[in-house]
Amino acid sequence: MNKVVQSEAETAVDLKRLGRAARAASKILANAPTGQKNELLRAVAKILRARSDTILRENAIDLEFAARDGLQGPLLDRLELTPERVDAMADGLIQVAGLPDPVGEVSGLRRQPSGIEVGRMRVPLGVIGIIYESRPNVTADAAALCLKSGNASILRGGSEALRSNLAIAACIRDALAETGLPSECVQVVDTADRAAVGALLQLTEDIDVIVPRGGRGLIERVISESRIPVIRHLDGNCHVFVDKAADIDKAVAVAYNAKCRRYGICGAMETLLVSEKIAAPVLEQLGPMYEAAGVEIRGCARTRELISGAVTATEEDWYTEYLAPVLAVRIVTSLDEAIEHIHEYGSGHTDSIITEDLSASRRFLREVDSSSVMVNASTQFADGFEYGLGAEIGISTDKLHVRGPVGLEGLTTQKFIVIGDGSVRS
Amino acid sequence: MNKVVQSEAETAVDLKRLGRAARAASKILANAPTGQKNELLRAVAKILRARSDTILRENAIDLEFAARDGLQGPLLDRLELTPERVDAMADGLIQVAGLPDPVGEVSGLRRQPSGIEVGRMRVPLGVIGIIYESRPNVTADAAALCLKSGNASILRGGSEALRSNLAIAACIRDALAETGLPSECVQVVDTADRAAVGALLQLTEDIDVIVPRGGRGLIERVISESRIPVIRHLDGNCHVFVDKAADIDKAVAVAYNAKCRRYGICGAMETLLVSEKIAAPVLEQLGPMYEAAGVEIRGCARTRELISGAVTATEEDWYTEYLAPVLAVRIVTSLDEAIEHIHEYGSGHTDSIITEDLSASRRFLREVDSSSVMVNASTQFADGFEYGLGAEIGISTDKLHVRGPVGLEGLTTQKFIVIGDGSVRS
Repeated sequence: MNKVVQSEAETAVDLKRLGRAARAASKILANAPTGQKNELLRAVAKILRARSDTILRENAIDLEFAARDGLQGPLLDRLELTPERVDAMADGLIQVAGLPDPVGEVSGLRRQPSGIEVGRMRVPLGVIGIIYESRPNVTADAAALCLKSGNASILRGGSEALRSNLAIAACIRDALAETGLPSECVQVVDTADRAAVGALLQLTEDIDVIVPRGGRGLIERVISESRIPVIRHLDGNCHVFVDKAADIDKAVAVAYNAKCRRYGICGAMETLLVSEKIAAPVLEQLGPMYEAAGVEIRGCARTRELISGAVTATEEDWYTEYLAPVLAVRIVTSLDEAIEHIHEYGSGHTDSIITEDLSASRRFLREVDSSSVMVNASTQFADGFEYGLGAEIGISTDKLHVRGPVGLEGLTTQKFIVIGDGSVRS
Repeated sequence: MNKVVQSEAETAVDLKRLGRAARAASKILANAPTGQKNELLRAVAKILRARSDTILRENAIDLEFAARDGLQGPLLDRLELTPERVDAMADGLIQVAGLPDPVGEVSGLRRQPSGIEVGRMRVPLGVIGIIYESRPNVTADAAALCLKSGNASILRGGSEALRSNLAIAACIRDALAETGLPSECVQVVDTADRAAVGALLQLTEDIDVIVPRGGRGLIERVISESRIPVIRHLDGNCHVFVDKAADIDKAVAVAYNAKCRRYGICGAMETLLVSEKIAAPVLEQLGPMYEAAGVEIRGCARTRELISGAVTATEEDWYTEYLAPVLAVRIVTSLDEAIEHIHEYGSGHTDSIITEDLSASRRFLREVDSSSVMVNASTQFADGFEYGLGAEIGISTDKLHVRGPVGLEGLTTQKFIVIGDGSVRS
């Protein structure tokens, strides 16, 4: 392929072929022993390091074209590879090789009254489609997680990163050959044609799940067009609620970290809720700290009395994921009101209560319907590595299948296994 | 409501209201203690028994209208309630009350390097939409499973069963009031309007998952129209493979049971694969048994040499779920060929190998990509009760979320819980 111009119908045919090949390869990969998969990942790492110069050269061409097309600032930075970034990709592969293999785990095998034994076996999903934007390192990261979990993958990166992605894909392909696995275990869509995404999202027969990685625009397009199930990662409108029984030092430390450690990540706090019983001492400490960090405060009327310089929060603010040094602050009368606020305005991503009160913490944990619910911890912990998953392919804001950070296990499913001895049902 | 004629727009508004009410009720039900939920289920059972006469009277009117509309045979039988069937519904509720509550279970809580403890808590999905056909007992069964798993439900039965369903729903509503839970925890769509299903399937905000229960036509309509995730239950084109190392007595017993115990269920065997090494003794015994049972055999050329009266199987036969006394039989050269046949023609529902060979059984268990994979057991065991799930709301042929028989756990999800002590991320 690698044609620059082709018809939509040609693209659809190309992708259908890719899908069929992925499905066939997935049957072999699903049964590859753990040792072979780990050997493969280490081989990819080795080849990546050995070909660092080639990869950087291809990346330089991508960067040149992107700059000519007017890409700048953080977008250009995301696209750029450096020797360190190539090294980090290789390190990531080695790390995934070291993770436990989820495939084949049998759980809950129990004898039933009829005499049959019934349990569950963890197996790969089959074929995973990854659609991502400009970071070329996703090519190696996502392929590694799919390979380790026994899934074939079809990767579609941003067209501006195509040369970089193909250079990385060539390393993976050579490592697959070296390890005796089919090269179709990992395929990169090698056309810059925008119709390719649309065609990919129609392959219901040959792709089992789509994982989009990128901004809201990409994810919404994928959700609206896909006929394949999507592991979706939507807004992180995260809350910290400082309960009346909070330890003030802990409240201040967590509320500051949840906002200011990094502004641009989905686990960043966007609204701070504070019990009226404790609002004065908490906000009088936090106000100047946020001010020093350059965080704009948008507060309710009572907040504005306690934080000088706070502007008026509108209804819109409670819904907003700023991903920026802006924070909405609201004083509430009770735990109930805090939970109601979170259910009304939140996005079900990550919410935390600060309290020393056991009953309040238990109620918050049970009742708040979010993918991560925390007690006395910063919402910025919402991350697969911090959760001990060893890796993360994304964070799911769905309820079905997986919720919250998605590691290797989220790329698998469980089938029932039944062992009898000539058993018949009466 | 209960209007016979209304516009599509009115129906959409009514259903939207139903959805909002279900969402609100679900927040309360999600936190209802196990004891209260069990008390509720026992109260429904008691009221059902007390009002058996009323329910049967309403059912008689449904039956009369249905007969007048030309419904007959098994369709009319499915619609009919008897004192015994009402009693069985009540017994079912008592049984669900006795099952362990999946909600609130915390698993895998482990301390991470940063000091936070991370685990998972099992929680209800929220609101479940059940779309079913003529059996009125589904109203009680499905409501019970949703209630026990802490989910609000919206039930849409067949229009021919509307009066029966409303009579049962009234019992549930009164029991909810008695137990102090909102009546909107279980709502029956009380219009015969066909547009109601379409409108229900658009409520992405207020319904978390749709469970269709019925024939292929219903399920396909739901899948194609739904904008809400569906737990789908498609074909059961199930296989038994008699390996060369099979015990002949076990093979004959299982292959006979898998076909002949019941023809019309999704776990019934539709194709029998037999290793050429053992085909003669196996098929010479089974042939006359199937013949005596009135099972038509459609076989490959070699099968037809061993079973007199067998007709020629066409390519189409290998794909067919007969749900009838018809069986496709094929002789294969190896385990590999059997697995390939199952992947090519099967539907990923339930497949079984008969063998005394450990390696063959392990390969079959690992490599066959079906929701239930069995060794030396009849495919007719594919059932939530036989698997020890205690109940079954359906059998999923999806890979994501749940696969195979779906019990209470399949109606829940897991959220992450994080416990810190003023923990901040570095």
